[in-house]
Amino acid sequence: METCCVTPIGIIHSPFSEPTGMPVQPSGASDIVGYIDILPQYLEGLSDITGFERIILLYFFHRCDGFSLQVTPYFDTTKRGLFATRAPRRPNWIGFSVIRLIDVKETRLFIRDVDILDGPPLLDMKPYVPKFDAYPDSKAGWLEDKQQNVPEISADERFHS
Amino acid sequence: METCCVTPIGIIHSPFSEPTGMPVQPSGASDIVGYIDILPQYLEGLSDITGFERIILLYFFHRCDGFSLQVTPYFDTTKRGLFATRAPRRPNWIGFSVIRLIDVKETRLFIRDVDILDGPPLLDMKPYVPKFDAYPDSKAGWLEDKQQNVPEISADERFHS
Repeated sequence: METCCVTPIGIIHSPFSEPTGMPVQPSGASDIVGYIDILPQYLEGLSDITGFERIILLYFFHRCDGFSLQVTPYFDTTKRGLFATRAPRRPNWIGFSVIRLIDVKETRLFIRDVDILDGPPLLDMKPYVPKFDAYPDSKAGWLEDKQQNVPEISADERFHS
Repeated sequence: METCCVTPIGIIHSPFSEPTGMPVQPSGASDIVGYIDILPQYLEGLSDITGFERIILLYFFHRCDGFSLQVTPYFDTTKRGLFATRAPRRPNWIGFSVIRLIDVKETRLFIRDVDILDGPPLLDMKPYVPKFDAYPDSKAGWLEDKQQNVPEISADERFHS
């Protein structure tokens, strides 16, 4: 299988210039505001986005390097398979966050619930649609009992190089 | 901003060899089974995945070419901004689906609710965690009233080249 190339469509800004201390998921970042600057050539693609309460962001974990196939996640003390975790050090370093959309002014999108380090290149943005994306009762494996404690957890250095 | 390169970690298989007639979202694909073959070097990263009922797939829309910033979605008769739709013809052709995980045998994952064309390179796989990902009451803009009708809608040629 071949390597494929992707080109950023914008850049995400947040108050977190360093990973240490930042929330590890949007559910722990409810007061955190940030913004996205979309490249001007994509302006026309932003129409109709304002009605969506949340949007899905796909972006590069731009501060990552390398990966481990077994990791000890923030929510656990046991090593887990990488693909059963949300650790950023992954083969393709692609981040996924569901964040809250507050306002749109030209090519700048104001966002909240931002669990993202400042500066990552944005690869794609899609509307969050509950019918497609919300499965509140879906079983969450080793995270099943731990997911409720996430808002209290902040990041340390373990996933960043 | 620079172009970044990504390398597939596996390949997704489904019964859909052509886009016409396939469901447009997992919610319309509840009986559709498929499988993912992960490359052998990533086997160790699959441990602990079996407890998750659903997984998030990020993949390349490998049959796409080019994009339009204004599209008429399946669920509508009006042109909408591309980033307010889930149309596959996007600047980076990255697909996102929440699918159901049925079983794992070595590097093969058996999946259901597959709204994906046969053959796309898989870029990443993450566990679906309701606390991070499920917002059942999130407002869905122009799709708010239309999302309930999705299971009856099948794809045509409009988004594939």
